[in-house]
Amino acid sequence: MNVLIVHAHPEPASFTSALFQAAREHFQSQGATVEVSDLYATQFDPVASDQDFTSRAEADYLVYALEQRHAAKAGTLRSDIQSEIDKINRCDLLILSFPVYWYSMPAILKGWIDRVFVSGLFYGGRRIFDQGGMRGKRALVCATLGGRERMFSAEGIHDDLRDLFRPLLKGTLGYTGFEVLEPFFGYHVPYLDDQARRDILGDWQQALANIDSRPVLAMPITGEYSSNFEERIG
Amino acid sequence: MNVLIVHAHPEPASFTSALFQAAREHFQSQGATVEVSDLYATQFDPVASDQDFTSRAEADYLVYALEQRHAAKAGTLRSDIQSEIDKINRCDLLILSFPVYWYSMPAILKGWIDRVFVSGLFYGGRRIFDQGGMRGKRALVCATLGGRERMFSAEGIHDDLRDLFRPLLKGTLGYTGFEVLEPFFGYHVPYLDDQARRDILGDWQQALANIDSRPVLAMPITGEYSSNFEERIG
Repeated sequence: MNVLIVHAHPEPASFTSALFQAAREHFQSQGATVEVSDLYATQFDPVASDQDFTSRAEADYLVYALEQRHAAKAGTLRSDIQSEIDKINRCDLLILSFPVYWYSMPAILKGWIDRVFVSGLFYGGRRIFDQGGMRGKRALVCATLGGRERMFSAEGIHDDLRDLFRPLLKGTLGYTGFEVLEPFFGYHVPYLDDQARRDILGDWQQALANIDSRPVLAMPITGEYSSNFEERIG
Repeated sequence: MNVLIVHAHPEPASFTSALFQAAREHFQSQGATVEVSDLYATQFDPVASDQDFTSRAEADYLVYALEQRHAAKAGTLRSDIQSEIDKINRCDLLILSFPVYWYSMPAILKGWIDRVFVSGLFYGGRRIFDQGGMRGKRALVCATLGGRERMFSAEGIHDDLRDLFRPLLKGTLGYTGFEVLEPFFGYHVPYLDDQARRDILGDWQQALANIDSRPVLAMPITGEYSSNFEERIG
């Protein structure tokens, strides 16, 4: 098995970073090949721009997704993007590890998706969800936050976190064809004592050991929709 | 009236940029003071890091939100962050203008929020929603995308876009106290002819002219929740 772990935390000694290292060690001990993209350590550039293409389909007017399609075909994506795509192509399992910033990813990880999940390779036309470019691969999100779990419930002031993360879980990972595993959330982390943190770390290690039986999130089935995806026909 | 427009598009000649310019012209013609943060033009740095603080509460271990609170009080936020905060403090209306990337904002705008919406000033403890730091100000999102409106419906393959944008509309703008206006979405933009684009531009100008009667999104009322926000008591 080939695993790619993409990690985005500004503090190498953070608890989130400990979860990242635990995942790396778990899969290495299983004999898997583990690759890593530590976005802060490598100062990954998260800003999608015209600099991402070494040649242009349309030099005077930038339509980012169109240039992605052109450059993916022509082999003219900037090298930092191409090397991330190569890593994803090699992996069977993608893990995203990050702290929750504003019910979403830190910008450095959002920009990794903006730049790396290129049109044409990851998706295109009707090639989404079960027809997406990444079908056959699994994805698992591991995220930490300050809030308590009960705040994110029907009773609490916030909405369910799995629901708030639909742009990533469904709209990005599911959309491009990944089989998306039930995400792992570490709640209330900055306020926990060492024992409570060890408990979360243990839960995470358990989740990794049992990854093959981890629930998979349901995604739309493209064949159940009209060709323009505007009507359900199935 | 003071208006701040934050714009994040890599192509200055894009339709999204035309919507941005139309907003600027509209409010100027009304006699309002209009400030602008054009994030691509100024190459705004979107990566939250230890470089954001000119002095540290805890030099050896970075807890980003804790350093934000410390630096906001001590006046030691990096100058590019402080100048954005000053602009927000001066404004009565904040407009965010961007193309939809992955059912969310481009990373450069996500990072503007990560770095500028600092703990302590924008929110803290029970100072969220109706008690948030930005109460008394309004916010309006203007975003463009490739999808057609009917794809984002109960019948279509995607979820409702207002719902997918809850992390921004509720979890960020509402959370920090803004009165959040019904967002404006320009659908299917890359595939539209000039007339259809002119229609969207006209709708946007109409929306701006009628901004005082634009619907406001409902937000939680903090007094209706227990002190830990885990139970509804109201």
